[in-house]
Amino acid sequence: MNKIVQKGTASLIFETPVYIESTASVAGKKEGEGPLGALIDRISSDPMFGQDTWEAAESAMQKETASLAMEKAGLSASDIRLVFAGDLLAQTTASSFGTAELGIPYYGLYGACSTMGESLSLGAITVASGCAGHVLCITSSHFASAEKEFRYPLGYGNQRPLSATWTVTGSGACIIGSAVPKRNCPSLHGRDGYAVITGITTGKIIDFGFRDSLNMGGCMAPAACDTILRHFSDLGRSPGDYDAVITGDLGMVGQKILLDLLKKEGVDISGIHKDCGIMIYDSRTQDTHSGGSGCGCSAVVLSARLLPEVVSGRWKRILFIPTGALLSRVSYNEGASVPGIAHAVVIEHKEL
Amino acid sequence: MNKIVQKGTASLIFETPVYIESTASVAGKKEGEGPLGALIDRISSDPMFGQDTWEAAESAMQKETASLAMEKAGLSASDIRLVFAGDLLAQTTASSFGTAELGIPYYGLYGACSTMGESLSLGAITVASGCAGHVLCITSSHFASAEKEFRYPLGYGNQRPLSATWTVTGSGACIIGSAVPKRNCPSLHGRDGYAVITGITTGKIIDFGFRDSLNMGGCMAPAACDTILRHFSDLGRSPGDYDAVITGDLGMVGQKILLDLLKKEGVDISGIHKDCGIMIYDSRTQDTHSGGSGCGCSAVVLSARLLPEVVSGRWKRILFIPTGALLSRVSYNEGASVPGIAHAVVIEHKEL
Repeated sequence: MNKIVQKGTASLIFETPVYIESTASVAGKKEGEGPLGALIDRISSDPMFGQDTWEAAESAMQKETASLAMEKAGLSASDIRLVFAGDLLAQTTASSFGTAELGIPYYGLYGACSTMGESLSLGAITVASGCAGHVLCITSSHFASAEKEFRYPLGYGNQRPLSATWTVTGSGACIIGSAVPKRNCPSLHGRDGYAVITGITTGKIIDFGFRDSLNMGGCMAPAACDTILRHFSDLGRSPGDYDAVITGDLGMVGQKILLDLLKKEGVDISGIHKDCGIMIYDSRTQDTHSGGSGCGCSAVVLSARLLPEVVSGRWKRILFIPTGALLSRVSYNEGASVPGIAHAVVIEHKEL
Repeated sequence: MNKIVQKGTASLIFETPVYIESTASVAGKKEGEGPLGALIDRISSDPMFGQDTWEAAESAMQKETASLAMEKAGLSASDIRLVFAGDLLAQTTASSFGTAELGIPYYGLYGACSTMGESLSLGAITVASGCAGHVLCITSSHFASAEKEFRYPLGYGNQRPLSATWTVTGSGACIIGSAVPKRNCPSLHGRDGYAVITGITTGKIIDFGFRDSLNMGGCMAPAACDTILRHFSDLGRSPGDYDAVITGDLGMVGQKILLDLLKKEGVDISGIHKDCGIMIYDSRTQDTHSGGSGCGCSAVVLSARLLPEVVSGRWKRILFIPTGALLSRVSYNEGASVPGIAHAVVIEHKEL
């Protein structure tokens, strides 16, 4: 019988195993040249992904990632019961055009760069409750479509402050399901075990009143802090219960703020904290300033770098916390603040 | 024990009752002057809802609707475990600024005008699976913020073809939960019974290649047809099992296409079909052309007009199918098609 247990005010524990059946990542040239380049499944040297527009390029990249995740799991689109997808573009068009041709029942999400956390959370709920056998969780971002959407078209050549992050051109996907995966997942280090989603903590929108859209790490850090504190409180856990706590895209500026905020509350995760935005680029040589960002950032790093560690058993339990800045071009041009949100997903190693 | 049963390829039946505990609607002056004006909880004569921008106006309206729904249910924000919210604006800022101050764990959705169907579907899954006691499902749209987002600022005074719809200024909310509601819901006709969500069919993205963003009814009708056919097929039901089948915002143009498409498949719902977009305005006197549209359209009509009929028992079972057109200003300016999506929710009368 399926069993989901509510914990505290915002967390769930899945007593029914939610297996990550396969994972896939596709990214751009710059990401391929970064520290994780060799771990990403496919690197495209063509930033247009064979399309005519940046938006169509992102859709094509997302669709390629979905297809690769299905191929790795030995599944076809008709085996997938649900898709939870999202991206950064207005009206999430990268996703609706990206997954449209797959013909899978579809729920579109918007959580800014936290969307992979939202997607995995809702996917895990539907799997653990018996609503679906296999669910596709996928997000994407593209540097050029995001610059056009939020800032200026690339041709303007605008300058970026050191607190700014670089939107990752990339898409990451997981297929999750209730049955023990039958198939070897090559990307997961020769399958020494499984990665299983065992719980979630849903984020609240946290608005500290920051208005600097070029310091999104600062805007999101309070939300990450809130979710992490609530997670530990809801589950009666502490940092010692995790091998790693990995935020989505706080970057170097946001990381410092997060660690400071948590220390003020008596919680020290400095020894186990990582940030996908810091991991994906080499800031000294790649001119990415505070780090990487975007829906694709945490999704690609999860797929390429985090899950292999969990599957291999080097990490027994991690807390994956994609972070999002809830702004639009209109909202910040109208002087609104930039609220943040962060959704936490517990991923554990399970022996074969 | 909670029980959810998969049916066919895209449907679920909830054997655990999912009660609609309360519902609320807030709308603008034009909607107040329409056929449903007297049934809507609150009409604002101020289109700015006391704010400085159209976007902030929409957020204020959405927040007022959420507060009213909680008040009617006798609940406070801390009693609500989850919010599923969405709107039409880029990066769904009406929702993130609308519900931010409530401090409830939050999942943002984007399904265009189908979002109320997505919100109720995911809300019902979390309630039926024991993930949440009370969930707030809410959407909004605002004529002026939508015109600015998708077409031209109002000051341009652009002309609209007869196939165009008029975006509803309105927000509708439902609080759903697993326990028998304790409290009288005044809007539900003096509580002659309950309204219960008993099943859903998740929509697929259907792209017939239509490119006319000013005929969204035509773009969405194939998606509504697909979801209705799959719903009947998945559940082994026929139109005779429903007192009414109500689409979101096909308008008069889209309604005709839907009925024709269904007839070609041997399914006749012409006697029981209604459309929220047709119901909310008087097209002869209100200059709304094909009808109303927007995330707020189906949500307001559900709250003000449909649920009271179900609670009173005049309708024993309805199929509520919000419909969405998945376009953005960028996608149609780049010549992309306008795919549609439609999510179906079964709502039934339950005796006291």
